[in-house]
Amino acid sequence: MKKIINNVEYIVDEMLNGIVVSHSDLVQRVADSTVLARKNINKNKVVLISGGGSGHEPSHGGFVGEGMLDAAVAGEVFSSPGADQVAKAIEAIGSDKGVLLVIKNYTGDVLNFEMAGEMSDYPCESIIVNDDIALENSTYTVGQRGVAGTIYIHKIAGAKAESGASLSDVRAVAHKVNDNLCSLGMSLGPCIVPASGTASFELKDNEIEMGLGIHGEPGIHREELKTADEHTIYIMDKLLAHAKPQAKDKVALLINGLGATPLMELYIIARKAHEILGNKNVVVVDTMVGNYMTSMEMPGFSISLLKLDNETEPLLMAKANTIAWKR
Amino acid sequence: MKKIINNVEYIVDEMLNGIVVSHSDLVQRVADSTVLARKNINKNKVVLISGGGSGHEPSHGGFVGEGMLDAAVAGEVFSSPGADQVAKAIEAIGSDKGVLLVIKNYTGDVLNFEMAGEMSDYPCESIIVNDDIALENSTYTVGQRGVAGTIYIHKIAGAKAESGASLSDVRAVAHKVNDNLCSLGMSLGPCIVPASGTASFELKDNEIEMGLGIHGEPGIHREELKTADEHTIYIMDKLLAHAKPQAKDKVALLINGLGATPLMELYIIARKAHEILGNKNVVVVDTMVGNYMTSMEMPGFSISLLKLDNETEPLLMAKANTIAWKR
Repeated sequence: MKKIINNVEYIVDEMLNGIVVSHSDLVQRVADSTVLARKNINKNKVVLISGGGSGHEPSHGGFVGEGMLDAAVAGEVFSSPGADQVAKAIEAIGSDKGVLLVIKNYTGDVLNFEMAGEMSDYPCESIIVNDDIALENSTYTVGQRGVAGTIYIHKIAGAKAESGASLSDVRAVAHKVNDNLCSLGMSLGPCIVPASGTASFELKDNEIEMGLGIHGEPGIHREELKTADEHTIYIMDKLLAHAKPQAKDKVALLINGLGATPLMELYIIARKAHEILGNKNVVVVDTMVGNYMTSMEMPGFSISLLKLDNETEPLLMAKANTIAWKR
Repeated sequence: MKKIINNVEYIVDEMLNGIVVSHSDLVQRVADSTVLARKNINKNKVVLISGGGSGHEPSHGGFVGEGMLDAAVAGEVFSSPGADQVAKAIEAIGSDKGVLLVIKNYTGDVLNFEMAGEMSDYPCESIIVNDDIALENSTYTVGQRGVAGTIYIHKIAGAKAESGASLSDVRAVAHKVNDNLCSLGMSLGPCIVPASGTASFELKDNEIEMGLGIHGEPGIHREELKTADEHTIYIMDKLLAHAKPQAKDKVALLINGLGATPLMELYIIARKAHEILGNKNVVVVDTMVGNYMTSMEMPGFSISLLKLDNETEPLLMAKANTIAWKR
């Protein structure tokens, strides 16, 4: 295992300290917790809390700030944070206008976030994000997994909350985004969880895994590495079959790197995805290309497609000021 | 070689097309060239052109836009663009107020950019960036190499140009930044240049190379992988010995990922670098953490330190609207 770390026991704590000293204008730590909160806490609006296991940076701490999340709770690498940590986030930033918990669909996250929500003194609602269309059920999941498309929930529900909307309206737009969102990824190799020191799976020199999860959970199938265009066509076909956009429909497109895939390759994929959408006269309103939800140093990528409407498009384009997404 | 590409001959062209379709609000291609220009070309100010071999994304196309570069010229992977390509950039965006060429110090880049500048009809000046303090001379270099600190020249000279300053003033501030800038990096392993298909060097399972160049050029020495803190102390000691900041001096800090190193590790390094600067009462005005000048999928990082003054600090903090740096 070749990682630039100190004691493996403190990597999450040291990372959180690094984030805070580097971006002290945007985020702060909540004492005795693994919670990052936005710098200027605003309790006069619905607040959004997300989080999950670490190792997916910049998710989710990178999306804390104006127009997106109010707090992010970090677990150990690829492990859900405990309900006590989520409770500390709610306690620190909770608003009488309400709290929306944005939870990626993994059994541990759902259990711990919802338990904290039920124990809270504030009105709490949740959205369980399940954008990964690879599999109906998976290793750590009943139902579809939540993956990179989650950042669209942070952005759009975050902008809705910033506008002063009620908890039920913020919750409604979060559910609308989830209903109009789908993602599918592929991996070229494993990452190494620091605490174990070993690769979570192995692939042959010329093999990829389609539909792999962001914790290395098994995907749909393994196959030979083909061209970028062939893999992009396969993934876009699956996404389009799911989303069924019509000509002139507006969409947002996210080409997400899993960690070790160069931007050069992500842009080659973006080029083909745009071509495929253009051939169907689907209008791409916004494209994001880069590492937004990673699996540490895993090589690979995912594509997320979000159908927009008159409510969600301006919220997507609204101001945001976070570490990893400024608009 | 496990890369998500199509025909290796077209990777730069396909990447440039991917960048343009993904960010059509910010950049455009200059016809029959490998030049990316900003969308709204402004010829009423000094214009900045940079570039170099591809494979360092988001450098340099990611820094084209308001407040930074007016154009970036892309060569093949790790190869300087020809003087003809640089000339096309000058022709497309050249301004009577003048052109500043921002050149990383590699023999090919210096030759080709300066040749194009000499042939140009516009007043042209250049700045040769040589921030890498690892070695006095290197494989492709007479003098120190230009590495990640170059993005500070893009930002600060770009903001100066945007303010309406003269060519000599923009050139002067670019030289001031270069004089107050130093960088040093280390690598945990090689990257693979697509055209050759093989790793540029090899390291043992527990070995790192200190001072490695962004094209895999040899560094200062090889040693065992130590803790993040030990490597950070070594690098910061070298940078501080070079920059000699005094108590209360203001600096900018860049923790730059070379490609495959997770943000988690970069933030652990950032935490230690801040601690070291804090112990000397040096004031860190701005910290950037992420992949800003990469070597494709190389694992490793560099640290850049820039001493600021009353002119450069507000220019660093001024508005920018590019793909990879928004402020």
